[in-house]
Amino acid sequence: MGIRSANEEAIRRIRKGTAHLVGMKVARDVVPGLTGKTLLHSGPPIEWKDMCGTQRGAMIGSILFEGWAKTPEEAIELADSGAISLDCCHHRRSIGPMAGIISPSMAVYVTRNEAFDHEIYTTLNMGLGRVLRMGAYDPEIIDKLRWMNDGMAETLAVALERSGGLDIKQLMAQALQMGDELHNRNKAASALFIRYLGGAIASVGGPDAARTLEHLGSSDGMFLNNAMAACKAMVDPAHGIEDCTIVTALSRNGVEFGIRVSGLGDQWFTAPSPYVKGVFFPGYSAADADRDIGDSAITETMGFGAFSMAAAPAITQLVGGTAASAMDITRRMYEITVSESDVFRIPALEFRGIPQGIDIRKVIETGMEPEIDTGISHKAGGIGQIGAGLTVAPMECFVKALKAFAAKRNLA
Amino acid sequence: MGIRSANEEAIRRIRKGTAHLVGMKVARDVVPGLTGKTLLHSGPPIEWKDMCGTQRGAMIGSILFEGWAKTPEEAIELADSGAISLDCCHHRRSIGPMAGIISPSMAVYVTRNEAFDHEIYTTLNMGLGRVLRMGAYDPEIIDKLRWMNDGMAETLAVALERSGGLDIKQLMAQALQMGDELHNRNKAASALFIRYLGGAIASVGGPDAARTLEHLGSSDGMFLNNAMAACKAMVDPAHGIEDCTIVTALSRNGVEFGIRVSGLGDQWFTAPSPYVKGVFFPGYSAADADRDIGDSAITETMGFGAFSMAAAPAITQLVGGTAASAMDITRRMYEITVSESDVFRIPALEFRGIPQGIDIRKVIETGMEPEIDTGISHKAGGIGQIGAGLTVAPMECFVKALKAFAAKRNLA
Repeated sequence: MGIRSANEEAIRRIRKGTAHLVGMKVARDVVPGLTGKTLLHSGPPIEWKDMCGTQRGAMIGSILFEGWAKTPEEAIELADSGAISLDCCHHRRSIGPMAGIISPSMAVYVTRNEAFDHEIYTTLNMGLGRVLRMGAYDPEIIDKLRWMNDGMAETLAVALERSGGLDIKQLMAQALQMGDELHNRNKAASALFIRYLGGAIASVGGPDAARTLEHLGSSDGMFLNNAMAACKAMVDPAHGIEDCTIVTALSRNGVEFGIRVSGLGDQWFTAPSPYVKGVFFPGYSAADADRDIGDSAITETMGFGAFSMAAAPAITQLVGGTAASAMDITRRMYEITVSESDVFRIPALEFRGIPQGIDIRKVIETGMEPEIDTGISHKAGGIGQIGAGLTVAPMECFVKALKAFAAKRNLA
Repeated sequence: MGIRSANEEAIRRIRKGTAHLVGMKVARDVVPGLTGKTLLHSGPPIEWKDMCGTQRGAMIGSILFEGWAKTPEEAIELADSGAISLDCCHHRRSIGPMAGIISPSMAVYVTRNEAFDHEIYTTLNMGLGRVLRMGAYDPEIIDKLRWMNDGMAETLAVALERSGGLDIKQLMAQALQMGDELHNRNKAASALFIRYLGGAIASVGGPDAARTLEHLGSSDGMFLNNAMAACKAMVDPAHGIEDCTIVTALSRNGVEFGIRVSGLGDQWFTAPSPYVKGVFFPGYSAADADRDIGDSAITETMGFGAFSMAAAPAITQLVGGTAASAMDITRRMYEITVSESDVFRIPALEFRGIPQGIDIRKVIETGMEPEIDTGISHKAGGIGQIGAGLTVAPMECFVKALKAFAAKRNLA
């Protein structure tokens, strides 16, 4: 249909998309093929032996959580034996922050794009610091995971049924007008989530209801998983359009950075994942950091995260920079995108829509790599988050993708 | 001590102030002299016969709520008879939005400035639309008031005890970085309030806990009363400093606008209250509006509200204007204030502190009246909110105050 029409069709689909949190399920019951000893991870495909510390740590924690091993040593032995099947979250209608490990017994939020009959699954957020997604796996963490996937998930299931679910797209539009960029800053969205579900959760009653609300309120970033699932739910239908040059996934496994392009099927175009230029927590430095990791850049794919930093000047306290530099990043991202959202609007830019639809051609033409605004975890598994900052999607991914696109057009 | 030193002392006290929500009480038990058939109202002193429709409506509703009359007609008769004692909230360590009526049986939030052993009382917020503070008083409203002052207040009392209270000053600093200006936009603060107290409220259990969370989540403006009480708690200690030219109250009763000045004792300097230039809800226009009303401009007195509009560009959807004009209002307010907050900072202005300490001399010198960003209620009692917009504190108040200041200095 031609590149221009294809890209317009992609934007039409993204705009038409919805994202409702409709319930809770156990991963094995809904995630395609998540049976037996299978684990999902963030980013493009990777084998256990090649994983970074963060992802190894989260693998160990997930194996312990599933009861497939009794000690970290046994878990490593099991993984070394090849008994664990691995796949990307992105291949299984799923998405996960940082290490992104999803195991069969984990509870998952079900986020639904009604316009395309499309569902995405993601785990509950554990909060900040020493948490599974950052590679930590000590017994206290496994105990907390057990409660989250049991009492908390059951409470949320009832609350979501009683409340009729939650319109995540609408909530994100509000949060963007409250200083969130919905990747690294989800403070407003996390509070709105509690506001809209608090009554239904309390109505469930008992100690799990109160503990669920305490847990949901324990971190500014609690909504990250929900934001990611909503973005994937809305972007996925724009994938697989012939001749379309729009990016439908930016994702990292802590070793490689991978992108997918609508018109280029299921292929990942990869490059070494960059390090994040960031602000480190006291006692840590760049030397301790793993490379950029996680499926969370699906938010930038949709136009949030660094693309929306003009909406979130307060995030510069976490990632560095100034309000002016945050504004500048958003302004530059309009140059590598083909459209602006009709729903997600930035008040400080006189309600201009967020930059949407990264075009691989524009990235190459302008020489500007998509900016990403993200967390940093320790390179040794078992430690957790050590900072936050800014990085980019490497140009090499886009060069490879454009070559593949050109080759495909010449063959056709 | 000289004007400069006096004003510096005022700012020192404001900065030193704290604001913790420490509990719930019944008004008659804590508000000085709120016994018998006494009602408090917003703004400078006014008699029943002179009140505007909004305040008359809320008076009628409060008389019905107290059971001093059975019908609106009886309530009017009782008020006409002179049997109701009236006083300003500001005179009784209290504060109230819009009509600002506080009656003896109402539950009040207790907000404490620990640094000065100073407590301020304010009512629970009823939500939006047809509510008591906007002059509405039909039976459904009175029923809701009864539940709020009974089941909801008891739930909050237990929750606040269990949680150890809530640091409102700290919460406001966060909300200011989330797009609130904390007068007309309290969306982030209202959600944070639920986030921080949600677990404790749910732990109380029973239907009142769930209903309390539902009610707290039912309006973006729920936190207004808390913001006002915190501002008064922090500004009051700066009142009564000899030679101080800083404004310690901006307040309106819907007929008159009154200001108080630190060095000028308990005198109100008044002028006719202006109309609000606003955006009206469908079906209403400026012709339906009461004049500017309520104690809520205590937020501007502290540097919030219109003074902080640069932090809240999204509010222009409600009150009109653009992100650029919002920025401009804050920039101008720095010209009539003597200081900038060390705690309340605006990310979009590279974390500059909000303009604080309105100096009556600077208002006169610059010819710039303090801006106010506020709600609009219908002039007929019983209808409620019909819009929101911008207005100013009239120059006449400042001219009168400066004359009084000069006269006092000449006499001394």
